[in-house]
Amino acid sequence: MTDAPSAGLTLRDAQQDLAAQPFSVFLGARIAAFADGRMTLEVDLRDELLQQNGYLHGGVLAYAADNALTFAGGSALGPTVLTRGFTIDYLMPARGRTLQARAEVIQASRRQATCRCDLYMFDAASTVAYCAAAQGRVTAIRPAPPP
Amino acid sequence: MTDAPSAGLTLRDAQQDLAAQPFSVFLGARIAAFADGRMTLEVDLRDELLQQNGYLHGGVLAYAADNALTFAGGSALGPTVLTRGFTIDYLMPARGRTLQARAEVIQASRRQATCRCDLYMFDAASTVAYCAAAQGRVTAIRPAPPP
Amino acid sequence: MTDAPSAGLTLRDAQQDLAAQPFSVFLGARIAAFADGRMTLEVDLRDELLQQNGYLHGGVLAYAADNALTFAGGSALGPTVLTRGFTIDYLMPARGRTLQARAEVIQASRRQATCRCDLYMFDAASTVAYCAAAQGRVTAIRPAPPP
Amino acid sequence: MTDAPSAGLTLRDAQQDLAAQPFSVFLGARIAAFADGRMTLEVDLRDELLQQNGYLHGGVLAYAADNALTFAGGSALGPTVLTRGFTIDYLMPARGRTLQARAEVIQASRRQATCRCDLYMFDAASTVAYCAAAQGRVTAIRPAPPP
Repeated sequence: MTDAPSAGLTLRDAQQDLAAQPFSVFLGARIAAFADGRMTLEVDLRDELLQQNGYLHGGVLAYAADNALTFAGGSALGPTVLTRGFTIDYLMPARGRTLQARAEVIQASRRQATCRCDLYMFDAASTVAYCAAAQGRVTAIRPAPPP
Repeated sequence: MTDAPSAGLTLRDAQQDLAAQPFSVFLGARIAAFADGRMTLEVDLRDELLQQNGYLHGGVLAYAADNALTFAGGSALGPTVLTRGFTIDYLMPARGRTLQARAEVIQASRRQATCRCDLYMFDAASTVAYCAAAQGRVTAIRPAPPP
Repeated sequence: MTDAPSAGLTLRDAQQDLAAQPFSVFLGARIAAFADGRMTLEVDLRDELLQQNGYLHGGVLAYAADNALTFAGGSALGPTVLTRGFTIDYLMPARGRTLQARAEVIQASRRQATCRCDLYMFDAASTVAYCAAAQGRVTAIRPAPPP
Repeated sequence: MTDAPSAGLTLRDAQQDLAAQPFSVFLGARIAAFADGRMTLEVDLRDELLQQNGYLHGGVLAYAADNALTFAGGSALGPTVLTRGFTIDYLMPARGRTLQARAEVIQASRRQATCRCDLYMFDAASTVAYCAAAQGRVTAIRPAPPP
């Protein structure tokens, strides 16, 4: 469903952008994939990221959705983007070893991208649980130059 | 607009619940008010919470919305609640000294509460900027006992 | 919470705009109030608007939310606006005589407005039920001229 | 992504349910496909469904998203479901001959289903435009019996 315009950013560009976000460094986020309107963000669980019952805090899921949507949008629109907002539905309590947020552009013009994000938990045995689903919109502050 | 059923929780109960969330402690969140279907959560800005341009990271705003909606819902439904999901619209880049998320129940039954949250930034001069607006839904895992 | 810029439109302007929407005429919608970032849309119930159990169809609530958000946004941004999207939470099944959707701008710049909408049902005795809550965003195609 | 439990409903069951909704009959909606957590709803454009500029009114898109999400959820949960709410992002103005709303369950338990919906416009040449994207949640009033 993705035929997003490409803004010519590489995985290395995206990793540098993430490293420039103090909050992403604080949470230990990393980029596992970035290309052609798709972006995968990962966060390893640790005690500081949990809520009172030992599950991943919903705020970490919301952070991951927000950021994965933003980077997916940026892959289409260029590096200078704003996320305008998003919706997240929590599907089940998140427990495991690693959170993976997979975002993709579903439609983009030069100025705006609409994106979806699926959030999964992996445990030690690589068993996957589908924990949350998000949809959001990203705007270019300076639009990508025409191809 | 709030005539939420009260679950009999006090500000002290809510503060203990927040202190039991490692992620909220990690971010330095505190509860400024909690009563009758309303809840105010505060987070002081520090470098670890920023994005690459020096603004508060959207993920912190999303965390604050998620948690304030949850506690507001819990004030009506009782302490054992799940947030099912929410929508957040970012209104302007967030810069300043303290983030304040004010949530309220707009409608509740014994099992479900729908809540809204307004997120403001205060700077040193107590000037306020309205940064984000959210709406979400909270479900009781064990419903509050009938009054 | 509303200090929306005013685009100088009157109730009569808004009523003419609504009359120019064939779908709004088809549903029998009318404007009950329009001023200063606020708009109230009404639809009288009739058999064609119901779902299979005799309640108002959710699609009519969604139409009313969409249109009330759009007109509220237009009251701040000028007559040429696009609604980018919205979220609606249904609070209870809607039964009664008249649906009233009350929307207001919660934040606006010259180009964008974020709005909320509360949807109520009135019955013959003017008893009110709060049936749905929405939040959405409206963009000016041609921004309102500076004041 | 769909491994929704099946509630044993057929396309004919779904068509009967739609025919029992006066509002769906009023709009001329029909079901083009229904199986295994997926549902396609179609509405042919006619003058009564337009807004002031000759495009399909956003309220019709919102109706179609609401109803397609509901039926997709019902295909997993059984016929007695409530749609709790949804988010819709409009991607481009909708013009053409037929609106098609394609919904699918992305995750379901016995009581709840989360669904997405993509809305397309077809013109006389069968050219497709991707006009809106939605995400919503459906609850069983009486859960489907265990398999």
